[in-house]
Amino acid sequence: MAAATSSLSHAFLSGSTTTHRSPHQPPHRLALTKKTRVAPSLSISRVGSHAAAIRAAAETLNKVDAGLVDKSVNTIRFLSIDAVEKANSGHPGLPMGCAPVGHVLYDEVMRYNPKNPYWFNRDRFVLSAGHGCMLQYALLHLAGYDSVKEEDLKAFRQWGSKTPGHPENFETPGVEVTTGPLGQGIANAVGLALAEKHLAARFNKPDNEIVDHYTYAILGDGCQMEGISNEACSLAAHWGLGKLIAFYDDNHISIDGDTEIAFTESVDTRFEGLGWHVIWVKNGNTGYDDIRAAIKEAKAVKDKPTLIKVTTTIGYGSPNKANSYSVHGSALGAKEVDATRKNLGWPYEPFHVPDDVKEHWSRHVPDGAALEAEWNAKFVDYEKKYKEEAVELKSLINGELPAGWEKALPTYTPDSPADATRNLSQQCLNALAKIIPGLLGGSADLASSNMTLLKMFGDFQKDAPEERNVRFGVREHSMGAICNGIALHCPGLIPYCATFFVFTDYMRAAMRLSALCEAGVIYVMTHDSIGLGEDGPTHQPIEHLSSFRAMPNILMLRPADGNETAGAYKVAVLNRKRPSVLALSRQKLPNLPGSSIAGVEKGGYVISDNSVGNKPDVILIGTGSELEIAAKAGDELRKDGKTVRVVSLVCWELFDEQSDAYKESVLPAAVSARVSIEAGSTFGWGKIVGSKGKAIGIDRFGASAPAGKIYREFGITAEAVIEAAKALC
Amino acid sequence: MAAATSSLSHAFLSGSTTTHRSPHQPPHRLALTKKTRVAPSLSISRVGSHAAAIRAAAETLNKVDAGLVDKSVNTIRFLSIDAVEKANSGHPGLPMGCAPVGHVLYDEVMRYNPKNPYWFNRDRFVLSAGHGCMLQYALLHLAGYDSVKEEDLKAFRQWGSKTPGHPENFETPGVEVTTGPLGQGIANAVGLALAEKHLAARFNKPDNEIVDHYTYAILGDGCQMEGISNEACSLAAHWGLGKLIAFYDDNHISIDGDTEIAFTESVDTRFEGLGWHVIWVKNGNTGYDDIRAAIKEAKAVKDKPTLIKVTTTIGYGSPNKANSYSVHGSALGAKEVDATRKNLGWPYEPFHVPDDVKEHWSRHVPDGAALEAEWNAKFVDYEKKYKEEAVELKSLINGELPAGWEKALPTYTPDSPADATRNLSQQCLNALAKIIPGLLGGSADLASSNMTLLKMFGDFQKDAPEERNVRFGVREHSMGAICNGIALHCPGLIPYCATFFVFTDYMRAAMRLSALCEAGVIYVMTHDSIGLGEDGPTHQPIEHLSSFRAMPNILMLRPADGNETAGAYKVAVLNRKRPSVLALSRQKLPNLPGSSIAGVEKGGYVISDNSVGNKPDVILIGTGSELEIAAKAGDELRKDGKTVRVVSLVCWELFDEQSDAYKESVLPAAVSARVSIEAGSTFGWGKIVGSKGKAIGIDRFGASAPAGKIYREFGITAEAVIEAAKALC
Repeated sequence: MAAATSSLSHAFLSGSTTTHRSPHQPPHRLALTKKTRVAPSLSISRVGSHAAAIRAAAETLNKVDAGLVDKSVNTIRFLSIDAVEKANSGHPGLPMGCAPVGHVLYDEVMRYNPKNPYWFNRDRFVLSAGHGCMLQYALLHLAGYDSVKEEDLKAFRQWGSKTPGHPENFETPGVEVTTGPLGQGIANAVGLALAEKHLAARFNKPDNEIVDHYTYAILGDGCQMEGISNEACSLAAHWGLGKLIAFYDDNHISIDGDTEIAFTESVDTRFEGLGWHVIWVKNGNTGYDDIRAAIKEAKAVKDKPTLIKVTTTIGYGSPNKANSYSVHGSALGAKEVDATRKNLGWPYEPFHVPDDVKEHWSRHVPDGAALEAEWNAKFVDYEKKYKEEAVELKSLINGELPAGWEKALPTYTPDSPADATRNLSQQCLNALAKIIPGLLGGSADLASSNMTLLKMFGDFQKDAPEERNVRFGVREHSMGAICNGIALHCPGLIPYCATFFVFTDYMRAAMRLSALCEAGVIYVMTHDSIGLGEDGPTHQPIEHLSSFRAMPNILMLRPADGNETAGAYKVAVLNRKRPSVLALSRQKLPNLPGSSIAGVEKGGYVISDNSVGNKPDVILIGTGSELEIAAKAGDELRKDGKTVRVVSLVCWELFDEQSDAYKESVLPAAVSARVSIEAGSTFGWGKIVGSKGKAIGIDRFGASAPAGKIYREFGITAEAVIEAAKALC
Repeated sequence: MAAATSSLSHAFLSGSTTTHRSPHQPPHRLALTKKTRVAPSLSISRVGSHAAAIRAAAETLNKVDAGLVDKSVNTIRFLSIDAVEKANSGHPGLPMGCAPVGHVLYDEVMRYNPKNPYWFNRDRFVLSAGHGCMLQYALLHLAGYDSVKEEDLKAFRQWGSKTPGHPENFETPGVEVTTGPLGQGIANAVGLALAEKHLAARFNKPDNEIVDHYTYAILGDGCQMEGISNEACSLAAHWGLGKLIAFYDDNHISIDGDTEIAFTESVDTRFEGLGWHVIWVKNGNTGYDDIRAAIKEAKAVKDKPTLIKVTTTIGYGSPNKANSYSVHGSALGAKEVDATRKNLGWPYEPFHVPDDVKEHWSRHVPDGAALEAEWNAKFVDYEKKYKEEAVELKSLINGELPAGWEKALPTYTPDSPADATRNLSQQCLNALAKIIPGLLGGSADLASSNMTLLKMFGDFQKDAPEERNVRFGVREHSMGAICNGIALHCPGLIPYCATFFVFTDYMRAAMRLSALCEAGVIYVMTHDSIGLGEDGPTHQPIEHLSSFRAMPNILMLRPADGNETAGAYKVAVLNRKRPSVLALSRQKLPNLPGSSIAGVEKGGYVISDNSVGNKPDVILIGTGSELEIAAKAGDELRKDGKTVRVVSLVCWELFDEQSDAYKESVLPAAVSARVSIEAGSTFGWGKIVGSKGKAIGIDRFGASAPAGKIYREFGITAEAVIEAAKALC
């Protein structure tokens, strides 16, 4: 039993019952924002008196009836079985097999406050095998989270419930990240652990370790097979994330049957190769002490993440379906539920939590409040001694940007030298990193091409975790998912990550999850068109702008010059609940008259116009590197006596959100003579140019040649715009 | 030297100089199609006489001046240096470091015929680290391939050249697959090796191993970091692909600098964990004998793929840039080129191949012809003894579909029972597998959800490689890339693969490469909308239809019922040079009056109409599961006296390719009252419904609830269509 003592102790602290924020409030405003919420009576000495309580509590725990633990574990199993049965949909197998690990984590090991799921210093838990979400819902319910009451369990997988089919952080306070697509969760967990290590290195003092929590994850065979998890786990070891502890639910069953049919590698050896500490718990079904001992051992290994392989039986307890794929993703069925009740000696009605189990878990509400209060007191102490650091840490916890931060953004005039937007992006990143304490990130081994290095910082590394340049290696997919974890660690962390725009194809699943889980990651995507030249069609994005414009809750920005790049960063930093994708050029672009930060904020705006009465002869619309071409064509057409409006449509999503009046002022319905130009697929432009207009773009793959040559060969030229415009007006 | 003898021997065979097909012909018609091309004089005894030649040749080789090998290797280095220098663009570092491996492979080990790059039984080579393509171009040039003449080397990375910035199979005969996006190539190589093992198991006889070749690959640190390569290599070992030999160019440098900054795992240990045989060649720069010995050892290990880690110096020979990232992706510059010439003792002009090197390599043209002729003779022998098998193998080599194959497709009437298109898809797959010998594939651990099992076959496994159900495990990305390799192995192999439609996000990079490299993979993507219900927004595709419609050279098909599913398979099987994506429902759908295979072939067609003169009051347009809704709405509107046309727009790409007259007959320009309905993003529909029409769809993420509930809540209903239609007409 000793294994769990050190962290259990905290869970047994009783103390302040300060009222905490409702978990339904947005996470941006934490208790710390109001000093009054910090329990002023707590002090170091009080912490000292807690030490005695801890010892007493540990002894108490040692006496906890082993039968009660079994009962608690079976409660988790049956809440899961019952919820899946009621929904007639879901995955009972994992919760039944992993209930022991879940119990030990939430009841004995983890430090959290059920009444404030957003308490900053909580331990993080990620169910990477997200289909087993009833495990997590059952645990949150037992622990006293308001987000999962009995009625929520009964509404599992129903419209509007807090208990959707996979864990969703934006629906269920207590759920840290959104999982389900396999492998994402473990990569998110790496991001959470990175954030902890980074903040601890920046803010902890010898006398006050103000940032100090663990990150736990459960992953299944499916997660292990996905490439993203290997990428993320390679990085976790490289970075020495010692406070990341992952449980591998080794149950030998996946949807298609025994893992023997497709998964016969030695996961242990692979993880040793990656640089992890690996422990094997052979009896995950009832070996509570082994699980506890493994966690203790994992915590003792400070310089490596630990994989605890826990061999379990999927659907443990079901006499006829355990250890088979049939229990993975379907309700057991009434008959088998009965048989399982009999088999495990469970006489209760569905959804029933026995009184002694309820009683046993009830301590987590006061204990959690005490943990937070204790930490708040620690923070008050920290604040007294380390004023400056405390202000910065607070801003990270609360996500408050420094006043006037946007003034740091560079501005440009048409006289500013022409430059690639990737370089202008680097100017913005470096300007912002000086003033925004939570900006950190890097590239998938393309820092010098993506231009993402923060010059005033070194590399975030195992022995330099306080630095802010993250070297992801050639691992795009995990890079995105790690950034999701960083963004969701606390509201003030603003991760950015970078690769060539075409390689968003490698990380699209992670980017979609940024959008879904409301993680405001900034995707710095350079080499955004055929303009990258010689690398050829494997490297030249075509359909990518369209494909992100079609994705919900993500901003696709394609700035044309310096001011627009600055505007794109302003938008990206402000949008903390939706990610931004910045498509940036490899090639130099002039700073255009009329471009502006304010224009970018509206998504689309007029950069030049010689018409009156909102009725130009023709509207030319461009984005990014082709806005220059549209502007040139406009100049030529004006020489021919036409009235021409040139519009930058830098971000369609923002433009869509403007008032009808504003949209009409930019793209008046009466003007059907419209020509768009963009070095990408014309897909989607039909709605902008209308049935009479013309969209100039590229609806084939690119080619390997110098950029200028490809532009000419593909007809992405001012001449083409002029010809199309003349045909329309 | 003995190491390489066994395979080298073949390269020294001299023999027939039969004229072979031009490599510029499409690969679909191979020498075998015309029996006359099989050199009739070759026979088993002739092969016997070759044995003596082999021994003599081996002895000759042993006497080959070691200096000549150095010279050949330096030729490869300088052709690469010179081409990159002339283009002022490209990656000299890898070719300079890997020239020794390249030399040993192409000059000593591999069996190929330069004048017929599509000879069926050739060894396959994949440069997974595709940026180093000058290595491959230099080797193809030396070996005598017509695709890479001196002028092609001089046109490296220029418009219209055969030597693009990354290897492209569709541009350069001799290049097997398209690489550059890292990690894809090794997964393609796994596909090629799978194809060999599968065909060998099906067709080889104790007295005639008609299918018998190796697959070689070179991968770099970047490939190793990508998750896709771990997925693919896990499968390669699971399947026991003993004839896959991969060289890991262990040069410690990636674009951002020393791999120490992001890649410190033990690759050796990881591969041992995956189940590979691992060999380390410590001196890859000059250790020719070690490379040879490693290959010999690799070939001796029959039940495991082998990773040969070759430690090299990137940019070997460059006195000031070797072993640094600066030599990875930029021209050396005139000064350093001179210094390198001096350092390696290379007095020649750019692009010069010394006479003795030329002479040494010149044997590959006659030897290659002899190898093919010898194999052709073997085939004649095979044909005599195993008539039936020979016919089938020929059809696989030539890609000829059996006459009348399409008659195997099931057809349906409105009286056929309602069914999910995923089930109808399984009916098609099983019907086709009976008649098409090259159809094989499987799912990413969702076979029972995707409905992809071929009932008459078992699982393709290490010890059952003749079977056709491939179990990919939860490895979508490598699944796609492996299928690309299978498709490009020979024209008659038609791989399909499956997962939930939303998880195309995991494999999009591989799917884009299917499109680019003209691999006719069939992507069976089920659970294609919110109609999947309770699994919720992580599993519900929204933007995916749009995102594939925007991608070049890929067919996005969304069939509505049985006939349309059959039509989708007809299209997919016929399109051998572009991949098809089939979006299929989880939920049951009725068989609609008016649906047809022929309609699908046109991409869009009228399924019902009560108007005359091509002027309905309103056109309702649907796809997949929403075509039923459009049809219902049409019925209701007709009851109200409207003339209504209902159109199925099952494949936009095919519809776009129809004549203007046909398109006008389906969507007449004069009818602006158009309503579309699709349970996905409306992005892109603007062009179809026009500025006056209405697109009903979903521009937000989905939700977790029973499908019917979500459809109603999201307004994907006949009522919504009727209301929109009434507002328009």
